[in-house]
Amino acid sequence: MTTHKPPRQASSAGTSARRGARAPGRPSGEGGDIRDRLLDAATRRFAAQGIGGTSLRDIANEAGVTPALVHYYFGGRDALLAAVIEERVMPLIQGLRAPVQQAGDNLRALIDGFVRTVIATASANPWLPQLWVREVLHEGGALRDLMLDRVGPLLPRMLAARFAEAQRVGQLNPRVDARLLVASIMGQTMFLVASAPVWRRLFDADDIDTDALVRHVLALLESGLEMPDA
Amino acid sequence: MTTHKPPRQASSAGTSARRGARAPGRPSGEGGDIRDRLLDAATRRFAAQGIGGTSLRDIANEAGVTPALVHYYFGGRDALLAAVIEERVMPLIQGLRAPVQQAGDNLRALIDGFVRTVIATASANPWLPQLWVREVLHEGGALRDLMLDRVGPLLPRMLAARFAEAQRVGQLNPRVDARLLVASIMGQTMFLVASAPVWRRLFDADDIDTDALVRHVLALLESGLEMPDA
Repeated sequence: MTTHKPPRQASSAGTSARRGARAPGRPSGEGGDIRDRLLDAATRRFAAQGIGGTSLRDIANEAGVTPALVHYYFGGRDALLAAVIEERVMPLIQGLRAPVQQAGDNLRALIDGFVRTVIATASANPWLPQLWVREVLHEGGALRDLMLDRVGPLLPRMLAARFAEAQRVGQLNPRVDARLLVASIMGQTMFLVASAPVWRRLFDADDIDTDALVRHVLALLESGLEMPDA
Repeated sequence: MTTHKPPRQASSAGTSARRGARAPGRPSGEGGDIRDRLLDAATRRFAAQGIGGTSLRDIANEAGVTPALVHYYFGGRDALLAAVIEERVMPLIQGLRAPVQQAGDNLRALIDGFVRTVIATASANPWLPQLWVREVLHEGGALRDLMLDRVGPLLPRMLAARFAEAQRVGQLNPRVDARLLVASIMGQTMFLVASAPVWRRLFDADDIDTDALVRHVLALLESGLEMPDA
């Protein structure tokens, strides 16, 4: 967490918002801290209780400030959601592209780097898989259009094209579907992190750390089950 | 859908409930039909809007009856949820066990049968993957304890034990984790069906039917990506 001054108490925050309103323009150092803290609080609440089910008041409570202060910094819930998308969600998505771009035409390096990066990113930002379950996987999820319209061309469609090309040149199992393979890899990375609270309790599996998870996924993707022929 | 008489209109359903109340005991044919229809309506609404977010009134609206009639048949929302679990959810879970039991010690038949059965069951009952996303994957999901306490010993722990035994006798890739493999297979079956509305639109993939999905998953699980060595 950041080390700025303690949050203003709710009883004084109306005053704080007005004080802020008298000094518009570029946020001061403290203003930047508070804005970041409000974005973090909004991201956590959106992930934990759903975007539609989260009010400005919930976010203010999470951050220990008044709704008026949230309103001062962001104007309203829609603008706050837009800021969460631009400043919290999209930077992580951009980070997932890095291993794909660095791998050049080395498919093995691409798979290895992408699997490691998705699992590390989702594990280090537990709100990401939660938000993804609630707002992308759900019918009617508030971020499904974002996924389709903005993330789609950035990452999944690029991956599917790479897989199709790898198949064309004989570098990838011809019996898998290049498009479904993108969803399958999400099912071995983001989904495994999202479902970790379930499988950890089901199998008493607190011993499985992120490295062990990555090793398992890469072994399965690279070699499959290695069952003897019938 | 069933072919019983048209649903009673809301204006007469209070009367219907009282008429029902004068003839307790085993439901008549019509009473059984209505009860089934209410269970189906409740299952759909629980899956579509979440168990916590669904009122008796929502379910009554879905079924085209009054809340009083739902109350007459089930007493209340908790009892209705319990009936949905026993009469809609658990029978499908039991059905997923069949291919595991039939496979004996043939691991290839087990994987093949289980993958086909989960994908077919989830595809034929679209409410099942929706409910699973909302109420098991979600933090605080209302069916997570059901998954851990009742489904866990029936299926996931049985599968993990089978996989561990197969590894012990050299019939399964020793580099995968036998417990994580259960979660990985869910990530290639239930998750792929649950996320189908997303990947179908992302990849313009309406051509991928259930058979093609099964072929892809079995190719990936059995052989992996078949990338050439570095």
